[in-house]
Amino acid sequence: MRILFTTVCVYCLSMLSCLAQVQEKLTRYVNPFIGTGAVSGSLSGNTYPGATVPFGMVQLSPDTRAEPDWEIGSGYNYNDGFIAGFSHTHLSGTGAPDLYDVLIMPSTGAEKTRTGEPNQPLSGYGSRFSHSDETAKPGFYQVRLKDRDINVELTATAHAGFHKYTFPLGTRDPKVVIDLDHSMKKGVFNCRVIAAQLHIVNDHAIEGFRVISGWAKLRKVYFYAEFNRKIRRSDLFDGGDEYFDQTLLNGTDLRAVLNFDIPNNSPLLTKVGLSTVSIRNAKQNLSLEIPDWNFYGIAAKADAAWERELGKLKIDGEKQKKQIFYTALYHTFIQPNNYADVNGDYTGIDFTVHKASHGFYSTFSLWDTFRAAHPLYTLLQPERTTAFINNMITQYNDYGYLPIWQLWGQENYCMIGNHAIPVLVDAALKGLQGIDLKRVYQAVKGSATTDHRGSPFGLLNKIGYIPENRQSQSVSLTLEMAFDDWCVAQLAKKLNQKDDYLFFMKRSKSYRNLYDSESGFFRAKTDEGVWQKPFDPLKYGGNGDSPYTEGNAWQYFWYVPQDINDLINLTGGEKKFLAKLDTFFTYNQRGETNNNASGFIGQYAHGNEPSHHISYLYNYTSQPWKTQYYVAKICRELYNTSSSGYAGNEDCGQMSAWYVFSSLGFYPVNPASGVYLIGSPGIKKATIRLPLGRRFEIMTNWAEDKIYVQSVKLNNKPYTQSYITDKMIRSGGKLEFVMGSKPNLNWGIEPENKPTN
Amino acid sequence: MRILFTTVCVYCLSMLSCLAQVQEKLTRYVNPFIGTGAVSGSLSGNTYPGATVPFGMVQLSPDTRAEPDWEIGSGYNYNDGFIAGFSHTHLSGTGAPDLYDVLIMPSTGAEKTRTGEPNQPLSGYGSRFSHSDETAKPGFYQVRLKDRDINVELTATAHAGFHKYTFPLGTRDPKVVIDLDHSMKKGVFNCRVIAAQLHIVNDHAIEGFRVISGWAKLRKVYFYAEFNRKIRRSDLFDGGDEYFDQTLLNGTDLRAVLNFDIPNNSPLLTKVGLSTVSIRNAKQNLSLEIPDWNFYGIAAKADAAWERELGKLKIDGEKQKKQIFYTALYHTFIQPNNYADVNGDYTGIDFTVHKASHGFYSTFSLWDTFRAAHPLYTLLQPERTTAFINNMITQYNDYGYLPIWQLWGQENYCMIGNHAIPVLVDAALKGLQGIDLKRVYQAVKGSATTDHRGSPFGLLNKIGYIPENRQSQSVSLTLEMAFDDWCVAQLAKKLNQKDDYLFFMKRSKSYRNLYDSESGFFRAKTDEGVWQKPFDPLKYGGNGDSPYTEGNAWQYFWYVPQDINDLINLTGGEKKFLAKLDTFFTYNQRGETNNNASGFIGQYAHGNEPSHHISYLYNYTSQPWKTQYYVAKICRELYNTSSSGYAGNEDCGQMSAWYVFSSLGFYPVNPASGVYLIGSPGIKKATIRLPLGRRFEIMTNWAEDKIYVQSVKLNNKPYTQSYITDKMIRSGGKLEFVMGSKPNLNWGIEPENKPTN
Repeated sequence: MRILFTTVCVYCLSMLSCLAQVQEKLTRYVNPFIGTGAVSGSLSGNTYPGATVPFGMVQLSPDTRAEPDWEIGSGYNYNDGFIAGFSHTHLSGTGAPDLYDVLIMPSTGAEKTRTGEPNQPLSGYGSRFSHSDETAKPGFYQVRLKDRDINVELTATAHAGFHKYTFPLGTRDPKVVIDLDHSMKKGVFNCRVIAAQLHIVNDHAIEGFRVISGWAKLRKVYFYAEFNRKIRRSDLFDGGDEYFDQTLLNGTDLRAVLNFDIPNNSPLLTKVGLSTVSIRNAKQNLSLEIPDWNFYGIAAKADAAWERELGKLKIDGEKQKKQIFYTALYHTFIQPNNYADVNGDYTGIDFTVHKASHGFYSTFSLWDTFRAAHPLYTLLQPERTTAFINNMITQYNDYGYLPIWQLWGQENYCMIGNHAIPVLVDAALKGLQGIDLKRVYQAVKGSATTDHRGSPFGLLNKIGYIPENRQSQSVSLTLEMAFDDWCVAQLAKKLNQKDDYLFFMKRSKSYRNLYDSESGFFRAKTDEGVWQKPFDPLKYGGNGDSPYTEGNAWQYFWYVPQDINDLINLTGGEKKFLAKLDTFFTYNQRGETNNNASGFIGQYAHGNEPSHHISYLYNYTSQPWKTQYYVAKICRELYNTSSSGYAGNEDCGQMSAWYVFSSLGFYPVNPASGVYLIGSPGIKKATIRLPLGRRFEIMTNWAEDKIYVQSVKLNNKPYTQSYITDKMIRSGGKLEFVMGSKPNLNWGIEPENKPTN
Repeated sequence: MRILFTTVCVYCLSMLSCLAQVQEKLTRYVNPFIGTGAVSGSLSGNTYPGATVPFGMVQLSPDTRAEPDWEIGSGYNYNDGFIAGFSHTHLSGTGAPDLYDVLIMPSTGAEKTRTGEPNQPLSGYGSRFSHSDETAKPGFYQVRLKDRDINVELTATAHAGFHKYTFPLGTRDPKVVIDLDHSMKKGVFNCRVIAAQLHIVNDHAIEGFRVISGWAKLRKVYFYAEFNRKIRRSDLFDGGDEYFDQTLLNGTDLRAVLNFDIPNNSPLLTKVGLSTVSIRNAKQNLSLEIPDWNFYGIAAKADAAWERELGKLKIDGEKQKKQIFYTALYHTFIQPNNYADVNGDYTGIDFTVHKASHGFYSTFSLWDTFRAAHPLYTLLQPERTTAFINNMITQYNDYGYLPIWQLWGQENYCMIGNHAIPVLVDAALKGLQGIDLKRVYQAVKGSATTDHRGSPFGLLNKIGYIPENRQSQSVSLTLEMAFDDWCVAQLAKKLNQKDDYLFFMKRSKSYRNLYDSESGFFRAKTDEGVWQKPFDPLKYGGNGDSPYTEGNAWQYFWYVPQDINDLINLTGGEKKFLAKLDTFFTYNQRGETNNNASGFIGQYAHGNEPSHHISYLYNYTSQPWKTQYYVAKICRELYNTSSSGYAGNEDCGQMSAWYVFSSLGFYPVNPASGVYLIGSPGIKKATIRLPLGRRFEIMTNWAEDKIYVQSVKLNNKPYTQSYITDKMIRSGGKLEFVMGSKPNLNWGIEPENKPTN
């Protein structure tokens, strides 16, 4: 009996386990707190824990500062113990602040009397909170506001936020504060509320807008908010001036304090629709997306939307691995954001209203995301990628060049290069549906030949490199432009544009003109060809006044992804190249640095993008096992499940996409080549769901110590190349890794098994 | 023969004279240079000499400063000898600067070489000019640019400017510079170009836009420009950065330099359409209004449009009188401006696009224009007045209160009070077509009860006056709000809203609460009822930090237009009132003053609006002849045909409307009562053309010295009242004045012949 019982139980357990397997939700592995705050002086990922749906316009999240500034782009720092309120729009992982629109905060407290006395500035609606009272999962956030014992739950749809406030028993005066002035620190990026309006529509609704300048030059944010309870009284404020009993207020520093009567234990719900176009559209967005008051129904829909997106990439592995992995995947799918209204309207780059048939996606942090996030989108989000591409071409048509950094449809010229070019070329060469190669070519060629802010192509054509005395960040620019040029050349080739191909291929070699064989680094020259002195390869640059962008000469040395073999030649052959690479990963001296540097392994700095491809470069040499070593080390040491789980800014998906690819066992060193260099898979199994029901499976015998590739099979056949291609993945199939705890010094070392670029 | 000849000649001459009389154009009397520049330290009218059509959106005029500032609101100062360029939008007579959109300047000069060398900032396209080379008439402006010998002619339609440039013989390199950065001095009113774009559409056209903050919070200005000659080459600049051979440029400091090939002696024409909505609309506006290249045809149309409007008021009189008079009438019809596109689209106060069926008029300088300009519009522009009213009600609906100062559809809160109220009430009570009394009442009542910036009605209700320690300009505010309240009360009465009537009538007496019988002035009190000290009735206030707005206690003493009889009582009876009035016009001492003060006769300051009604107040006493004396004196001494022909800022028509009414022989002391106080007509004959073919004629035996009314006839019957009413005028008829060189001390002195308010 006992045996039988055990047997049955084992059977039952496996059944349950199997069922659990089938029904296991991926969203449970997502921990939105990862990356939200630095621990002990490390950089934070600058992510937020709030509620959003994949690629949604609304990100409803707590702001832990009254005026978020540079160091808290996402509005939330895990180390803070204070919440100013919950605003509806946020950036994930950026190094610069903006958005934070329509802040709402529940509160309680004695009513102000209508004395007509000089008004006290409204303040004190913020509250302390504790992480023990806080939860977050995809599409849902909850916190208990300690000071007033209010439980706040938040969820979201693409264009609307949904709030549930539970006040403590016996609360006599529940309030909601709506703050249209809340923004990044005023003055930063000329941030200023130019105009705003609040309008109490009826005893259940308030609407309004603000026009604000900032990192995005100018944004119009319209909102429409409804409550499930009657507004008993509303007081409107413009700065320190209080307007009792009014229903409409204009100004620049507007707040509404709404007072409600709520039966005990009964929650107060509010739902808030947003639009870049009009209040009417905001209201329509809201009514179409949240037609009723079913808060948990909307939260479940948000969860289901995430489940659907995350399910495009199923992995088996350690729990912690899955947590980091799915949180990373979650972070990659937070943006680009669809700013078009449900009816397709959006405010374009010319500040007029346009109509989008397939959404209008913005938030293109391209200097970061062209590296791995966009290649990941081409695999997992092909339809959205087509929309991204076409939206970027819209900017080309209306603005003259593709986006550099596009925020709310506005170009902000953040960072260098024109890295929409690799994104477009990559998607085009991968043959994504709905992409017109000729239009793409026109856009990338135009963007690579039309002088614009930060991109002096005329100068490049004339001198052969960017001279530092004419345009700062010249070394980084020359190298990155050379890569973009290689991309344009590939599409020229595909379209039989021979002259163009030759022109851009020639220019893609510009990096050679800045190679200083004496120091062995890419260095800045003047327009007269004189090396800039003094030269310190350890010295960091930021975003100007240095030849290097958010990095140093050590890190930028490796930025020739289009022709690593030529870089090897330039260095003096593989031996010297390997020696340099070894030094790079082991040389721990620090020169003059700045806050762009973090996540160090020697000179390697995983906390910022210029390093991201470098660990894979051993794959171009006879020592691929060192790629495996360093990739595994980075995954293990520079990602974790804590609030400082990223080694630096998450950067709109790039830091996460690196992890996703690297965990799968490969990475796009050249993100427009369709080639992925094999590294060290960190999962036991992965399934990439592809269009037309196709699947690409990755199987490994992964274990903690088994970080080295012993051998590989593709579709059950031995596979000896040190890279795979997008075509292989997209065709569907199975990639099997045999991993071991010691390097297989013979794997992947033959030159013929390496990518040509 | 000789006799015969003489006879024939006399006959011929009278025929010719008669013909001339019939065909005499009124536009020839308009001298747009009047008011364009101060002479010997007087204030200028701050008008501009450029080309515009009546109530048009475009005012194409030279800017004589690179960055117009406070002292040169119109962009032009007759004392300047330099023209920076010709921009398409201007304000006429305002004390604050803004607009100056899309500056264009023809030039010549050696081409820059495309060296890729560091670019010199573009400059030096401005030119000296001389008034001997300059002409202007309604809808047309011409100047020879001295430095390059280019003759410039300008004309305009409602939404477009038309330029004709004649380059000197042998010019090898004619150029046109388009400057989208040109604006008022940056930083003033937060003035900043937020975004701008220039786009060379083809070899004959350029388009673009700018988004700019300023006195109007935020303006979007789109343009489309065409040339009759081929653009041979275009260079685009963003600040000091030059972009050769490009067709599209974005930035904030944009200029285009367009180079043309032009056959000798052949003029270069360009026409430029504007829109607040989109480039597409700007292009459509242009193509509908200027379909071809007939420059003089468009100039003739502009002239005809002016002739039509000026013809609504025909006068006979001295030539100089006619020049001042018709220039004044011209200045009153320059604004309000119709900012709606030809298709009705306009950008509204909520920064979205709206549709207007009868135009969207803005530029409401109401603190100035409610006094006489709007009453004049009710007579001469009844249809447009209906549109003005309905546009203002649109602001009430969308913004919560009627305009205070509306510029390009945006409220800028300039000055005090809510003087759209008298404008609406006046038009409503005069029974203008298309005005819904209930909607008007809702708007004026709402605007007189809804607290908003500068208008703390709650405080007024509670304390009975505005206390200076809570809101500055409190005396002026209390007095002016009291008048506005009287206006609301009149409409309440008309609509049988008894409670409202009583409420607003009571509040219309608020001025009494600030009357200090000891000093005999309206003075500031604190909210605790304490008189503010020290008190100096000569001390001027500006726009804050003083109880008086752009005036002093002497001038504001008289601001009870709704109940002059009560003011007389308050002063202690007619004798004391007369003594005070006599002192006012003769007491020449100056206290602490500022640049709001000019055009003095004693304490009377015709250069600013608070004084405007005061000379007519003798009409409420037994000495109307002193009204006649001072009105004639003001007309004679404080208006002339020079560039300093106004005693102060022309203020969007108010300074001119005073002159127009006063020249006709009457003036609306209370501008919402439909009552005009008789003064001293300055013309021999006037005909007001009214709807339905009705006419109201004014006949006088005017001569230089005949400034005193001896007797009056209305429709051939003796008329003994010292005022006429709007109803009398509107019914049509004839008003005859017998004037004399000595006062008729008995005319108009009976109390029963005076208006009750």
